[in-house]
Amino acid sequence: MKYLHTYSFAETTPFLLSCGKTLSNVNVAYETWGTLNTDKTNAILIFHAFTGSSHAARHYEKDTEGWWETYVGSGKAFDTDKYFIICANVLGSCYGSTGPSSLNPKTGKPYALNFPFITIRDMNSAIKNLTDHLQISRFLAVAGGSMGGMLALDWSIAYPNSTKSAIVLAASHSQPAQAIAFHQVGRQAILQDPSWKKGNYYGSEEIPRLGLSLARMIGHITYLSEKKMHEKFGRKLQDKAELSFGFDYEFQVESYLRYQGHKFVDRFDANSYLYLTRAIDYFDIRIDHGEGSLFSAFEKSKCDYLMLSYSTDWLYPPENMKQMANTLRGCGRRVVYLDIDTDNGHDSFLIDNQVMVAAVKNFLSQEIDTTENNV
Amino acid sequence: MKYLHTYSFAETTPFLLSCGKTLSNVNVAYETWGTLNTDKTNAILIFHAFTGSSHAARHYEKDTEGWWETYVGSGKAFDTDKYFIICANVLGSCYGSTGPSSLNPKTGKPYALNFPFITIRDMNSAIKNLTDHLQISRFLAVAGGSMGGMLALDWSIAYPNSTKSAIVLAASHSQPAQAIAFHQVGRQAILQDPSWKKGNYYGSEEIPRLGLSLARMIGHITYLSEKKMHEKFGRKLQDKAELSFGFDYEFQVESYLRYQGHKFVDRFDANSYLYLTRAIDYFDIRIDHGEGSLFSAFEKSKCDYLMLSYSTDWLYPPENMKQMANTLRGCGRRVVYLDIDTDNGHDSFLIDNQVMVAAVKNFLSQEIDTTENNV
Repeated sequence: MKYLHTYSFAETTPFLLSCGKTLSNVNVAYETWGTLNTDKTNAILIFHAFTGSSHAARHYEKDTEGWWETYVGSGKAFDTDKYFIICANVLGSCYGSTGPSSLNPKTGKPYALNFPFITIRDMNSAIKNLTDHLQISRFLAVAGGSMGGMLALDWSIAYPNSTKSAIVLAASHSQPAQAIAFHQVGRQAILQDPSWKKGNYYGSEEIPRLGLSLARMIGHITYLSEKKMHEKFGRKLQDKAELSFGFDYEFQVESYLRYQGHKFVDRFDANSYLYLTRAIDYFDIRIDHGEGSLFSAFEKSKCDYLMLSYSTDWLYPPENMKQMANTLRGCGRRVVYLDIDTDNGHDSFLIDNQVMVAAVKNFLSQEIDTTENNV
Repeated sequence: MKYLHTYSFAETTPFLLSCGKTLSNVNVAYETWGTLNTDKTNAILIFHAFTGSSHAARHYEKDTEGWWETYVGSGKAFDTDKYFIICANVLGSCYGSTGPSSLNPKTGKPYALNFPFITIRDMNSAIKNLTDHLQISRFLAVAGGSMGGMLALDWSIAYPNSTKSAIVLAASHSQPAQAIAFHQVGRQAILQDPSWKKGNYYGSEEIPRLGLSLARMIGHITYLSEKKMHEKFGRKLQDKAELSFGFDYEFQVESYLRYQGHKFVDRFDANSYLYLTRAIDYFDIRIDHGEGSLFSAFEKSKCDYLMLSYSTDWLYPPENMKQMANTLRGCGRRVVYLDIDTDNGHDSFLIDNQVMVAAVKNFLSQEIDTTENNV
């Protein structure tokens, strides 16, 4: 049985992007779990984060672990016995949907830097094409963390009638300056790697390993909290009792980061790193939907919200989520907002947490039980 | 008149370092301001931060601006009318003191990576050689911020009779795991730059500009606060009204960081960056002086302390300074501790601040007025 599907569109009519350019022959890779009920009221659309894929969870016992295995499955927060769950790989990524590593139909070669710039808005437009094709006009919920949370926010405003609720985790109404700064450094590390070759490294043995690995190391620091890093590594030395005086791994935290960097290079495309970080940098729902005003943007939404921030998330600090929750309440929306007390930093939305499980479960069961009062 | 002096030692007896290796013909570059009084009770030793030099302040009107111009001068917090101030460039740096760019007397070529690993302890040992030579056996105060604060801490414990007080700003009793992580990424950026050539780029036209500039960009983010970055740049675009969709400078914060990176390359040596960040990573006064215990380390000190942390410093969070202040009080030391409320992040100790000026002035005038009761 095949679990990874691909929906293709824009074969005749080009797909128009926010930057003004178009894409033809767009693929959207997606996976589904559970069964859609007859009145189509149990569908949930899950959005992955920056480096994720459509593979949110296992389909069978020996399947590869998914990125949200803890939360998606039989009896879990996103209960696949109750809900029909869809997760699609975003445009610009490298896990089956069209991105810079895909073949450009015009040239027969990978797009590389000829891939047009994309936005969070464009990612959702592509996924909307898929869900229209699947004939799901209204979701019980759209849900995601980090970039996935940005997609959930954008979806809830751009397609107000197409979801009953939105679950937004560890996200921000716009990419903050400090986060843009870290992305910029990560991109520079890739752009300056001689093996990057202006993006034309596909098919070559040399790929921008060093640059991409550096970018990941920087990212990884921002996904953890200072407290967690201190608890996990502190100043412990790597496999030794005394300092060896060298630039290699003296401390465990160094070895850990290098390992994270190396591991990442084997699973992610450097050009996708460039395009997706840029898309995230561009994200600002105030500009995209409200002419600069958060209130005006949120006035367009019609759904209920579950919003979770995490006390030690310094990439997207809780204050931003709180501001969104308050503004949405001002707009008359039903909002359940929790700031979850945890040491796990930004990555918290990926990590098992009792409060988060309960919050999602309760929110979803209330959503499915209530009559449709907000169309 | 010459203001930059050099003291040379270890011409016959090699200078022993913490790593077990030795250095011969060590230079220590230093500058002084003000006049030493006859009983030698008005001398203050200032330590610069990581990328600083001995040039803390101007010596004459048209002199180059110093790194602590705001705080050092006639009538200022470190009042050059009252105090005799010394600032020396640290070992391993590139502003006149012996470092990786200095000529190795054995080969006649720059040390490059043959330079031995150094520690904060070694830097102070070298400066102690200088101050012994200058026949100043006891300072009114030793003072510094960031790495300079670590030097002040180390000095106060290693040479308990040689200072009446220590002024420690924006520092930590040990380099935290997250700060080690950022240093590691910065060093990797240099080590992976093909122009670095295993450290042998001296005299070549190609220097590791890209790697060093990246390292500085990362460092710079950690020196600012998220709040300050948001206030200063937010999501403002660079010289344009609309997104241009590119990997170049879209946002002001990107342009600013790139500028900081480029500017830095013209004034700092990449190998010094490697050695000094490593020295900072190694710093842990608990290990260096207390067999792992902060209390045991501080029990060795005999001086008074002025300790300032800054509310938005996330590189060396205030909690660490508070812990030091409390432990020192437990050891019977007189401690004035302030957590200064500011948006300027780690860099606060370099920026004009009324409370900081007053705190330093008052502390120093109390120190000079009190009788010598703590020898």
